[in-house]
Amino acid sequence: MGGDSRRLTELSRPESLRLLGGVPVGRIVYTVRALPAIVPVCHLVDNGMVVVRTHVGGECAGSVVAYQADAIDMVDRLGWMVTVTGVARRILDPDEVEYYADRLPPLVSADAIETIRIYPEIVTGARLVNEPDS
Amino acid sequence: MGGDSRRLTELSRPESLRLLGGVPVGRIVYTVRALPAIVPVCHLVDNGMVVVRTHVGGECAGSVVAYQADAIDMVDRLGWMVTVTGVARRILDPDEVEYYADRLPPLVSADAIETIRIYPEIVTGARLVNEPDS
Repeated sequence: MGGDSRRLTELSRPESLRLLGGVPVGRIVYTVRALPAIVPVCHLVDNGMVVVRTHVGGECAGSVVAYQADAIDMVDRLGWMVTVTGVARRILDPDEVEYYADRLPPLVSADAIETIRIYPEIVTGARLVNEPDS
Repeated sequence: MGGDSRRLTELSRPESLRLLGGVPVGRIVYTVRALPAIVPVCHLVDNGMVVVRTHVGGECAGSVVAYQADAIDMVDRLGWMVTVTGVARRILDPDEVEYYADRLPPLVSADAIETIRIYPEIVTGARLVNEPDS
């Protein structure tokens, strides 16, 4: 058995977006009145863009946000984490709004669901791997 | 069977901290050069405070951060989410540092692990529950 140590190995941008697209839920991270805010939402990765449908669109749209997902097994403490950073933009085209409404249920039902696209200017991903005992 | 809708019911501060303390991993959310940043870490809830050991302490300490955990079952889309917002402070007392080093392995091994305490000035928690069909 190895020790408890884990290290991070960097993932490529395509692999990071592939992992992100393989899970249904992540967290949108933004700023409200200079305070950090974070809300879990459902997402799709479509043509290399992250799309979410959320009631916090009004607080995010037009700003640089982070979008994060991870899958970490707490028994062996292995897994991965991906963060996308970029500008969040409202999708306004009715056909696109309908397209995503059909494919992406909001995690929480609300009156003011908006469809938001995040342009992934920065993509960072890492995998937790066992570090050989030295 | 009900519809797909989920709504949020607010959780009390004690219940939120109890749920947070019952899971080993969350995410620290902070700001680096005006950009949102988020990193998964292991945590303890001790005397109502959140304690983490992380290599991003230098970027967080002295700032208001958010600390978030959730447990959302993606099959039935039920679960909970908790966010603590408050100032992150380095723990410097050697006895306290050692106490937490014995109880809280860092998620990722690194040379510059710091012990950080987050004072929960704001605690928000919510549970995803089924919304009866109207």
